[in-house]
Amino acid sequence: MNRTEERTATWTPRQARAHFRSGASSPTAGWSRGHTQANLIAVPADWAYDMLLFCQRNPKPCPVLDVTDAGAWTTPLAPGADLRTDLPRYRVWQDGELAAEPGDVLGFWREDLVSFLIGCSFTFEWALAGAGVPLRHIEQGRNVPMYVTTRACRDAGRMHGPLVVSMRPVPQHALEAAIRESSLMPAVHGSPVHLGCPDALGIEDLDAPDFGDAVDRAPGDIPVFWACGVTPQAAVMASRPPFAITHAPGHMFLTDTRDEQHRIF
Amino acid sequence: MNRTEERTATWTPRQARAHFRSGASSPTAGWSRGHTQANLIAVPADWAYDMLLFCQRNPKPCPVLDVTDAGAWTTPLAPGADLRTDLPRYRVWQDGELAAEPGDVLGFWREDLVSFLIGCSFTFEWALAGAGVPLRHIEQGRNVPMYVTTRACRDAGRMHGPLVVSMRPVPQHALEAAIRESSLMPAVHGSPVHLGCPDALGIEDLDAPDFGDAVDRAPGDIPVFWACGVTPQAAVMASRPPFAITHAPGHMFLTDTRDEQHRIF
Repeated sequence: MNRTEERTATWTPRQARAHFRSGASSPTAGWSRGHTQANLIAVPADWAYDMLLFCQRNPKPCPVLDVTDAGAWTTPLAPGADLRTDLPRYRVWQDGELAAEPGDVLGFWREDLVSFLIGCSFTFEWALAGAGVPLRHIEQGRNVPMYVTTRACRDAGRMHGPLVVSMRPVPQHALEAAIRESSLMPAVHGSPVHLGCPDALGIEDLDAPDFGDAVDRAPGDIPVFWACGVTPQAAVMASRPPFAITHAPGHMFLTDTRDEQHRIF
Repeated sequence: MNRTEERTATWTPRQARAHFRSGASSPTAGWSRGHTQANLIAVPADWAYDMLLFCQRNPKPCPVLDVTDAGAWTTPLAPGADLRTDLPRYRVWQDGELAAEPGDVLGFWREDLVSFLIGCSFTFEWALAGAGVPLRHIEQGRNVPMYVTTRACRDAGRMHGPLVVSMRPVPQHALEAAIRESSLMPAVHGSPVHLGCPDALGIEDLDAPDFGDAVDRAPGDIPVFWACGVTPQAAVMASRPPFAITHAPGHMFLTDTRDEQHRIF
């Protein structure tokens, strides 16, 4: 970890949000260590029921941490935060196509937008590390690799799309700890959805992820797959609501919630 | 347990549903042992988003097991079941007032009804019993006592209402097991919301529950309170949607799901 990383790791989420609000941009892996990062998906109120039902029917990839009232840009997860400015980078979607990737969305905001804050697997990594599970992507200074699978989510009204998974290579001796620790955090994706055979999820090449970076596996490492919070973003691309705003991949919303709060035990 | 109870305990959920479909009615405590019982709340589609958001914002009292499409009376939780006929008794609500308590709702059904199936604390009782926690209400052949508290749920659009809790007296030596076992089943209310002091929830008299039966406490028993699936029914009474259908208290929907499936570990 270099000096900049060490510095941002100890910032409070409030400091980090103010930094991004003032115009700075950066991926958030490792920022405000110990605090929960969240995926953002904002859709027009007319689509909010379908999105919420999609999340309810697909709780492993889409664990809902909060849903705002229409037009509101505040959340109890981070008092004082402004969802329109406090993320480092956004994506604006029109009819399921990427239309812009701005540093704030003040100019895109609509009074009918309902924002969904969805759990992120970064949240259980501290628990994996604490239980002795090596995190290869962090050792290698890379983003976690993510894959679009051939497994379909359960439809909800107009919302549909594929399951997206993240992958962490885990050595045999740490497998039980990885399964146990993530299982104890069902609000942030919980137990793995699969392990061992990428083919079973329709993943042809582990070295060619759809999002994030490829990660080197040590001899004997087993690929372990967790449901991923990019799934609702993939559903936006597949279902083509007329308008949506999301975070840019890896550029998450930093909440004041502590990771431990999502551990049920 | 008498002979009739022993018989219905071993019926499959499918057999029990057919029995109720044919016109029979009975409280379902102890029926189809090992299978998950669910609370039913059906509201017009116009209210479904508020109800789903209410559940999302109040996950401990309102753990959603399934939400149907509008007008549908089927659920993957119980293939072949008909939500209009297969519960032993229903309640029909108009403007938040009880309008009827029929044995089926074929004559009340509407094409715009969205049905919510909500987890029930009966589901974790097998785990409590297995861990050596005595269940006083079952020992005494009574329904579990339930109380309307002074604690408000978090509002969601037009939906609001008080938290309702169930109470089980637990001896000191079994307290840790009761907390641990229920915590491991977050999809069916999870850990207790309170224990020890009824005053803290605004409960004046444990012997005068708002629903169910009063239960005798053994010397040294501590009252333990869990969030209760009657909460959404209390929200219907408080929020007064123009129309709603629920199960009658204690007359639950028997799903094919097994209780163990809700244990995360």
